[in-house]
Amino acid sequence: MPNTVTDTLKQALECADQQREQSVDDLCELLRIPSVSADPAHKGDIKQASQWITDRFEKLGLAVKIIETAGHPIVYAESPPVPGKPVALVYGHYDVQPPDPLDEWTTPPFEPNIRDGKVFARGATDDKGQMLTHVNSVAAWLTACKELPLQVKLLIEGEEEVGSEHLETFLTENREKLACDCVVISDTSQFAPGVPAITYGLRGIAYYEIHLTGPSQDLHSGVFGGAVANPAIELSKMLAGLVDEKGRIQVPGMYDDVVELSAEERKEFAGLPFDEAKFKAQLNVKDLAGEEGYSTIERRWARPSFDVHGLTSGYQGKGEKTVLPAKASAKISFRLVPNQDPKKITEGLRQRLEELLPAGITMDLTVYHNAPGVLMPLESPYLQAAAEAIELGFGTRPVMIREGGSIPIVNSFAQQLQADVLLLGWGQNDDNLHSPNEKFSLEDYHRGTRASVALWDRLAQVNPTTA
Amino acid sequence: MPNTVTDTLKQALECADQQREQSVDDLCELLRIPSVSADPAHKGDIKQASQWITDRFEKLGLAVKIIETAGHPIVYAESPPVPGKPVALVYGHYDVQPPDPLDEWTTPPFEPNIRDGKVFARGATDDKGQMLTHVNSVAAWLTACKELPLQVKLLIEGEEEVGSEHLETFLTENREKLACDCVVISDTSQFAPGVPAITYGLRGIAYYEIHLTGPSQDLHSGVFGGAVANPAIELSKMLAGLVDEKGRIQVPGMYDDVVELSAEERKEFAGLPFDEAKFKAQLNVKDLAGEEGYSTIERRWARPSFDVHGLTSGYQGKGEKTVLPAKASAKISFRLVPNQDPKKITEGLRQRLEELLPAGITMDLTVYHNAPGVLMPLESPYLQAAAEAIELGFGTRPVMIREGGSIPIVNSFAQQLQADVLLLGWGQNDDNLHSPNEKFSLEDYHRGTRASVALWDRLAQVNPTTA
Repeated sequence: MPNTVTDTLKQALECADQQREQSVDDLCELLRIPSVSADPAHKGDIKQASQWITDRFEKLGLAVKIIETAGHPIVYAESPPVPGKPVALVYGHYDVQPPDPLDEWTTPPFEPNIRDGKVFARGATDDKGQMLTHVNSVAAWLTACKELPLQVKLLIEGEEEVGSEHLETFLTENREKLACDCVVISDTSQFAPGVPAITYGLRGIAYYEIHLTGPSQDLHSGVFGGAVANPAIELSKMLAGLVDEKGRIQVPGMYDDVVELSAEERKEFAGLPFDEAKFKAQLNVKDLAGEEGYSTIERRWARPSFDVHGLTSGYQGKGEKTVLPAKASAKISFRLVPNQDPKKITEGLRQRLEELLPAGITMDLTVYHNAPGVLMPLESPYLQAAAEAIELGFGTRPVMIREGGSIPIVNSFAQQLQADVLLLGWGQNDDNLHSPNEKFSLEDYHRGTRASVALWDRLAQVNPTTA
Repeated sequence: MPNTVTDTLKQALECADQQREQSVDDLCELLRIPSVSADPAHKGDIKQASQWITDRFEKLGLAVKIIETAGHPIVYAESPPVPGKPVALVYGHYDVQPPDPLDEWTTPPFEPNIRDGKVFARGATDDKGQMLTHVNSVAAWLTACKELPLQVKLLIEGEEEVGSEHLETFLTENREKLACDCVVISDTSQFAPGVPAITYGLRGIAYYEIHLTGPSQDLHSGVFGGAVANPAIELSKMLAGLVDEKGRIQVPGMYDDVVELSAEERKEFAGLPFDEAKFKAQLNVKDLAGEEGYSTIERRWARPSFDVHGLTSGYQGKGEKTVLPAKASAKISFRLVPNQDPKKITEGLRQRLEELLPAGITMDLTVYHNAPGVLMPLESPYLQAAAEAIELGFGTRPVMIREGGSIPIVNSFAQQLQADVLLLGWGQNDDNLHSPNEKFSLEDYHRGTRASVALWDRLAQVNPTTA
């Protein structure tokens, strides 16, 4: 698949260039609607935003439906089927984070302000701006060529910032309607300015709480100290026993199913413009830490990790209290990588903790949320098609990266629709998503639109029956 | 010193028996005054209680003084000097703990109620009842023999339950007036019913707080987990590194100055009626724990111990939060035994923690309160005299025990007055001191009075110049 530009693609790209100013007006119009999903006071704004999206799709002549849920509505649209061509499903969200703290915004969060080539507003990058690039590209194709080279389905929800509570049910109940070959999501970031990225891997998670109980009530440490196991000390020992001095997690089976990084991936990661000194300065730590034998990026993206999120025991007020606490607890998690199975990890953890548990202490283990890691095959033709499209839109080939966190909806899409998920980030890491002064570069906005225009062309060249 | 009863002692004992009913009336009168030192609303009652003590001493013809402090008054009285004889200083307190929770009292806390041979009231054992035994004994001697066989000084304070804030200054400023050969304190317990005890050793304490700081703010554990040291994990490792699998504290110099138990002491402790199964059942633990090679009593009374009193880090609310916490802290202490020096222990701890501190984490160590352990020589003639006196009062020789906790005023007396401190407990462990339904056996009250009568006789036989 040579990186050529056909006439139709050229026309669509030119049309996108012509519509650039209009697309900025569109974005600003949507940004003016304070569609904060977390705040019931904004219910009307949520409705207005979903209506705005619906109107936009109708104007393009797409078949649109507003799907009411027990929460906020989902807007669904699709272009006509194109026989023999793959189907792409775009996922995005029209809801935004609350704008607080308001007094830290330079200009009001719902009055989009353009300065230095960037639009400042809540939702600029997350996800109104990024999501609209795919609407703009559909508009460009339909205006220039009257049709898209493949069928595009668009699913825009209003509850992403509050956990996508009703999306899972919607996916389960509409597997057929949503059937597709790949899912396109632009809700992540470029690796750095001018370094567009495709995120092809995410870590999963397995989250637990360990509760230890010693004596039935808090004891006087003078009278009992030295005679009874202290749950806070025993908890410390058990947590210390979950990792060795090389940073390897001491849970049976932890590394059994880990997909090791390929030489190619390690080379790609090593070539990324990552400044460790700057990273340390940003975190204000003198040294980094973690599993021996892996680079910082590898440890964050592709290696299992162990964290303690909270410790609770005994007296936590000011000054001193000589209590031998009856209880101690810790919230912990493991970040998982493909193909670790959370269930197996839970079994291993339980076994290890029971080994470490001393006589005189009882343990209760709460198993919270867990999700496996996700890895898109680098050789996926859809992923390769997206890489070419991005090169056309941004003028530079994207880097292939992973992320250390989880994106629950990605798991949902991958599992429910059995489709490759393409995470194409147009934003920047410093776009202040979820923070005051959220912004989105208008240059990136337009490059994203152009990349999306090219994406429909490139995806249409993949043979869905052989992919 | 044979356990003989001289005529004068016989007369004094008989007099104490005759005054027994009166002594119970006296106790009830004092118990009716709600002298709660912690509550400013009871300031008048505190004054009334101190006046009651003063009146009682004046009635006995002692030289009395009320010493006003910035807090509650101290009552000080003394009998005439007896040349060539030792001087005994009695310490006690007339203030009491707050009576809450009131609804758990069977009869009101300040309306002394006698049932089953016990008086129930706040302060019954702690310390009005126990303290009055020494007033009763002075009264018996003065009534029967017109004089005491040695000079007795009585120092009764009103701030014991709120930390004896002004006592230390008073001791420092009145070392000459208070000069004595031994200090007599009845504010502890018998070892068990019918097993009176002399407490000859107390543990000290060295209390600290360890603060660890990693990154300058809480981080997302997905994005950063595996790359940065987690302060909660590192704290756990450091705490785990303070003790080995044999329960030995891993602090340089910790055991250097420890006074080991003598074979005699170990034999005495082993012979005490201590039921380990009952002890475990009471604490609701399946097993006990601690330093290998020592019995439970030895570990509690005579061995250094390490406790974590509080753990604080990260998210402690309900459910899960995937935070890599910026900070973690622990409140810890070591119980010290004679002759450990808290300063040396602090140095050792700092050295050990610095060894354990990983790169990328900074530590701040707060040094809180510390106090050395106290040990009265078992061969002290005053202690031997007290043992004989107790045998006369209770009909059985007392056991020689220690306590695992500290009693700060004991350190103060020992250091300021350079005198042996005799802790002669007449109470029982289940007397509910500091709890609802505090009580004191009237039998123990009278036996305590008789033991105190005998104590003045026996102490008077010690030659202060050779003691």
